[in-house]
Amino acid sequence: MKVTIIGLGLIGGSMALAMRRCGMVEYVRGVDSNPKHAETAIALGIVDEIVPFSEATIDSDCVVLAIPVDAVPQMAIKLLNRISPTQWVMDVGSTKEELCEVISQHPARGRFIATHPMWGTEYSGPEAATADSFAGRNVVLCETERTDREVVQSVTEIYQRLGMFVMEMSAEEHDTHAAYVSHISHITSFVLSTTVLEKEREVDTIFNLAGGGFDSTVRLAKSAADTWIPIFMQNKYNVLDVLREYIHQLQLFRKALERDDRDELRRIITRANDIRKVLQGNKH
Amino acid sequence: MKVTIIGLGLIGGSMALAMRRCGMVEYVRGVDSNPKHAETAIALGIVDEIVPFSEATIDSDCVVLAIPVDAVPQMAIKLLNRISPTQWVMDVGSTKEELCEVISQHPARGRFIATHPMWGTEYSGPEAATADSFAGRNVVLCETERTDREVVQSVTEIYQRLGMFVMEMSAEEHDTHAAYVSHISHITSFVLSTTVLEKEREVDTIFNLAGGGFDSTVRLAKSAADTWIPIFMQNKYNVLDVLREYIHQLQLFRKALERDDRDELRRIITRANDIRKVLQGNKH
Repeated sequence: MKVTIIGLGLIGGSMALAMRRCGMVEYVRGVDSNPKHAETAIALGIVDEIVPFSEATIDSDCVVLAIPVDAVPQMAIKLLNRISPTQWVMDVGSTKEELCEVISQHPARGRFIATHPMWGTEYSGPEAATADSFAGRNVVLCETERTDREVVQSVTEIYQRLGMFVMEMSAEEHDTHAAYVSHISHITSFVLSTTVLEKEREVDTIFNLAGGGFDSTVRLAKSAADTWIPIFMQNKYNVLDVLREYIHQLQLFRKALERDDRDELRRIITRANDIRKVLQGNKH
Repeated sequence: MKVTIIGLGLIGGSMALAMRRCGMVEYVRGVDSNPKHAETAIALGIVDEIVPFSEATIDSDCVVLAIPVDAVPQMAIKLLNRISPTQWVMDVGSTKEELCEVISQHPARGRFIATHPMWGTEYSGPEAATADSFAGRNVVLCETERTDREVVQSVTEIYQRLGMFVMEMSAEEHDTHAAYVSHISHITSFVLSTTVLEKEREVDTIFNLAGGGFDSTVRLAKSAADTWIPIFMQNKYNVLDVLREYIHQLQLFRKALERDDRDELRRIITRANDIRKVLQGNKH
């Protein structure tokens, strides 16, 4: 199989390496509007060849969209406009509703599959790509009933060979859940970072004292604005919904502490501890 | 050297294992009000013998207080009341102002050293103790000018042998910084967990989708209420100060997203990214 990957950052680069390693892909073309990323992707052996977007569909069985989510819907349309009936297109972005709505009436809708491999790091660019990133993770396929059966089968086989657990849901469900289990975590990290930087002027002390849990909660604050602003904007209503609830729960905690209400603090913390059960389930 | 460790949980148990392994301690007595913890500590070889609190100072060079921070000040006083002029007492708790104030006028103040090894996990109890937890971490000594020189030297040698980086500051400075780099992280995790559990009724989906960053930001939400409520209460004013700022910064983010203000979102995220430099410094 030959694939073209559009967007050679952390996710696109990792997809290229992983698909090649799992033995299903023998040739990888890459498209990237950033010449530096393109150059690095060649230098690191992530892709075999760099091509312009206009040649993305030439001699490729599949085109993978791994670009910021605000650019995905239009790019998807452009690709569907020009592929042959045996080619297909997939995306690997973090939001799905907008995308699925935009492509819904396209005559070649059946050749598109919306996917979200649930993996990422706080780093970006092709340098951050790794071949074994996806093993043991979940991947969500959305609106598979709108995609041709053979395309769903190909994608499922690829992800399973990468060691992923494939699940299906509607685009709407996906975006609601993603706001809770991924998008809000990035916001809490970004804001924890700005809070500490705002108040802790003695920067030396921050890093000297880190180790008390700060590192893990703030890890995602290193994530790229170019990736995350489009995600927050596209999933705006779900994200705002979670964010309001989060602020509300913080206020409850603050008030309990203000009035020395140990019982309420204990209720909150004991409830929070229930996440143990949930995360323990995440081992398959 | 012989030591008695009071409180055989995660930190006390780890101190016992680490002090023995580093070759400075040949006999460890343990005190724990929880008979199960005491039993486990013996079974796991964490301590050589369990003694009642009344015998904590008998035939020990040093007594380590590793109990919840609200119990530390009074216990410290009781121990200082009964030690000989060659014995000494240390604590390993997460707050220091209250403790240092309570013991400040004790005639044996010089035999006490207030310390905070900057390490912990979300787990608790002697089962969670590990021998090599402290290597590469920082440890804060507070008010060393109030402690006898030989005691400061002994503690410094112990922590250095454990591979730790020893730093000194006032109790007040410690508590302010600890609110930023440790205590707030626990609150953001606890509250993120309650938010998600509150809104995400389909628990299966939480664990199926986790992997998008949620795990690391929520890790600390598994931490024990018995450990953390006393810390929040004792460091109440610093914690409330950080918490108010954190909520304020979240409101700024929320408002920027509500009005689609990409520039403001970019300013916040780019500022948050500065934490990279700070954490990179944390490698020594």
